[in-house]
Amino acid sequence: MSGDSDIALIGLAVMGQNLVLNMNDHDIKVAVYNRTTQKTHDFINGIAANTSISGAETLEELVGKLKSPRKIMMLVKAGKPVDSTIEQLLPLLDKGDVIIDGGNSNFEDSERRARALKSTGIRYLGMGVSGGEEGARHGPSLMPGGDATAWPLVKDMFQKIAAKTDAGEPCCDWVGDNGAGHFVKMVHNGIEYGDMQLICEAYHFMKTGMKLSNEQMHQIFARWNTEKLDSYLIEITADILAYQENGQYVLDTVLDRAGQKGTGKWTGINALELGIPLTLIGEAVFSRCLSALKDERVSASKLISGPATPANGLSESEWVPALGDALYASKIISYAQGFMLMRAAAEEYEWTLNYGGIAQMWRGGCIIRSAFLDEIKAAFDKAPDLDNLLLDEYFRTEVEAAQSNWRKVIGKTVEIGIPVPAISSALAFFDGYRTASLPANLLQAQRDYFGAHTYQKVDGDQSWHHTDWTGSGTGISSSSYNA
Amino acid sequence: MSGDSDIALIGLAVMGQNLVLNMNDHDIKVAVYNRTTQKTHDFINGIAANTSISGAETLEELVGKLKSPRKIMMLVKAGKPVDSTIEQLLPLLDKGDVIIDGGNSNFEDSERRARALKSTGIRYLGMGVSGGEEGARHGPSLMPGGDATAWPLVKDMFQKIAAKTDAGEPCCDWVGDNGAGHFVKMVHNGIEYGDMQLICEAYHFMKTGMKLSNEQMHQIFARWNTEKLDSYLIEITADILAYQENGQYVLDTVLDRAGQKGTGKWTGINALELGIPLTLIGEAVFSRCLSALKDERVSASKLISGPATPANGLSESEWVPALGDALYASKIISYAQGFMLMRAAAEEYEWTLNYGGIAQMWRGGCIIRSAFLDEIKAAFDKAPDLDNLLLDEYFRTEVEAAQSNWRKVIGKTVEIGIPVPAISSALAFFDGYRTASLPANLLQAQRDYFGAHTYQKVDGDQSWHHTDWTGSGTGISSSSYNA
Repeated sequence: MSGDSDIALIGLAVMGQNLVLNMNDHDIKVAVYNRTTQKTHDFINGIAANTSISGAETLEELVGKLKSPRKIMMLVKAGKPVDSTIEQLLPLLDKGDVIIDGGNSNFEDSERRARALKSTGIRYLGMGVSGGEEGARHGPSLMPGGDATAWPLVKDMFQKIAAKTDAGEPCCDWVGDNGAGHFVKMVHNGIEYGDMQLICEAYHFMKTGMKLSNEQMHQIFARWNTEKLDSYLIEITADILAYQENGQYVLDTVLDRAGQKGTGKWTGINALELGIPLTLIGEAVFSRCLSALKDERVSASKLISGPATPANGLSESEWVPALGDALYASKIISYAQGFMLMRAAAEEYEWTLNYGGIAQMWRGGCIIRSAFLDEIKAAFDKAPDLDNLLLDEYFRTEVEAAQSNWRKVIGKTVEIGIPVPAISSALAFFDGYRTASLPANLLQAQRDYFGAHTYQKVDGDQSWHHTDWTGSGTGISSSSYNA
Repeated sequence: MSGDSDIALIGLAVMGQNLVLNMNDHDIKVAVYNRTTQKTHDFINGIAANTSISGAETLEELVGKLKSPRKIMMLVKAGKPVDSTIEQLLPLLDKGDVIIDGGNSNFEDSERRARALKSTGIRYLGMGVSGGEEGARHGPSLMPGGDATAWPLVKDMFQKIAAKTDAGEPCCDWVGDNGAGHFVKMVHNGIEYGDMQLICEAYHFMKTGMKLSNEQMHQIFARWNTEKLDSYLIEITADILAYQENGQYVLDTVLDRAGQKGTGKWTGINALELGIPLTLIGEAVFSRCLSALKDERVSASKLISGPATPANGLSESEWVPALGDALYASKIISYAQGFMLMRAAAEEYEWTLNYGGIAQMWRGGCIIRSAFLDEIKAAFDKAPDLDNLLLDEYFRTEVEAAQSNWRKVIGKTVEIGIPVPAISSALAFFDGYRTASLPANLLQAQRDYFGAHTYQKVDGDQSWHHTDWTGSGTGISSSSYNA
């Protein structure tokens, strides 16, 4: 049985509805299904009335509406609902059909599902979708990975509905095998955590250190959005700072307890697993955790004294440009770390990743979209094997130019007691990265002292040595003590 | 069949051999077994000759040598070897017998094994053992958890062989159910990563910023070891700095690429899972990762410029006390974070943890032993439900007294380009923790802006709000977008 719909979509929460409407705008004929049938009816008879979108009450009916080879996209809750939807679909499909998971699945699940489905002849794609409800409706960033043979079947559709760069390129391209699409989406979200934290730290400095008003801060963010910090998150921060209801700034009524849904955490865990120093995102995730301890912080603030903040605020002409540089340099570090993680993952999971392509996918549609990503794309186009963004001439020169202001801002925050964990961890990483000899020689000596872990020497020889540092040890290399 | 040995030990690597010799010193009769029989023979006929220690060539023989109820301790490689040893032992044991895993198992494995063995009637203990080979031989720190009914059967033996505090208390006490022992050992190791990193940062500052010689640094660490920083790791650092072979300081020949065996990483992952801001240990783990990128750092050091370090070094009389304060304050933060993690874990995994007892277990024998732990024990003895060490009067006062020097040191490192990721992340945490209003209100507003995640208000009302920040959104709360 086959019908005339181009694609099916399962799951009509706001993201699903908006993606369907977006497809419809591009003359893609969509059949939809939702577990709760009422939602399908409401959608079809409501916002989707008078379109070619059709609804199905059962998965059988849904599958029957599709052209062959069928393309079925799920936008359901990550985890078990994805596995159970796949299980229900399998008996209804034919070899060559394509299942696409457009939800927020953990990349390890997508990796597992893509591998498992290979033997069935069903083609599986795990696709990261970013941009929130607005992006889904008018052009999201799409990061598809999985079975590469499925890509030509869906490429046109997805590139049509995706956001476009200023140059008109789609923010959607093939990422890589198995879980690579959801992995890149995870890193995107981790970077988003970092960008948001950096902006919060800048806001904190302006508000508490410089004692600027919301209107002044609105002006600064709006101006930054026309300069090198030009990005969606800077833009919405300007909006948020200006937004009033009944003569009151709504921002000032919002409780400072950050929530999280886990993708930043996943990124941090993956970095620890792969041994990549993703310090800025780590601090961003932990900052959300600390913010959540609101009651404890309020108690602590009454007990523990810190330095006084400047009575009159810091000079705007001196400190706004300095803060902009600190933000910009930290952002470069965060992206450098994110691309380090992707490079390590590509090696670990045997993916071939196109780093310039990834920068382009993030260039529009998604939450971290920014002018800045053009430069990242340019860096990788110039040197696809670039080890680190900081070694690219453009970024190196930018960070070098910003570093004196960056240091100045951190020095001031440390002096007056404003926490800037992400901005300062970025500098510590930068200073560590550009240091040929770190003090890890002492750390290796300590490990050898107490655990006989052995060490290598600076002489370039690869062999391992043990020293009896006290003259009284046994000289036996430990094989069971961990440190 | 039963014999007259008090306990059996499986696994004769250096830690196992030393623990057995330690037990023998305390008139505990031990039977030993190793998978490679030759190792058993070598041990029995070598260092264990003329003792009551006996060897077994098979597990059957080993079990036959034991008094009932039998106590069998494994010191084998973590992971599958532990499961396979348990499997081989089970048919040989009777209800009420005790299996003890003294290796470096992940606490989740111990949790699983303890729960699984409950139904068999065999009592399971997962015991963290710290102190390296020297500790094992002369008094380790022992952290037993698992089946509480087994504790009275082994308590005397383990408290005998454990290290003792200055007051003569054993550094071994009951930790809690199931995986609690290995969990506390994991946190110990995480804290060890932090302490080592802090010392490395101090060394880096003294060497590069102050331009001190190894001999000068040796003197400083030796002096610190008689003051409030008094601890095993400070002591061995003093030794290492002084140690020469053929007229050369060995430390200067050690390569600055840190290794790791994973327990610091586990601690960081667990903190991310539980949502506890364990920033200092996180930075310590990531610092090891960065140190491992030696070749990349050497390349980067040639390309990227930073600020000049002071030509003549910084004044010793001014900066050594400042650095000591920075180290001390950071160390307090690290322990405060570690105890936050244990408190969250106790809730998550339903353990009743005795925090003062844990401080006492770490007081001697193990790598992080220090005078400082007496104060932690005192704080929890005074207030067993203390939310955070920083709220204890002693620690709060100590950090407040140290903070001006702490800020001064970080300011200087930021200015001259010496990375101190752990010291500076500790300050950022401190400044965040004592801040009643963090900028997470902006972060929540951003999440609500792009993802309709909703937010709570500062008015104390628990309800969730959504604002249409642009005046053009749909007002639908997102249920599928993650940020």
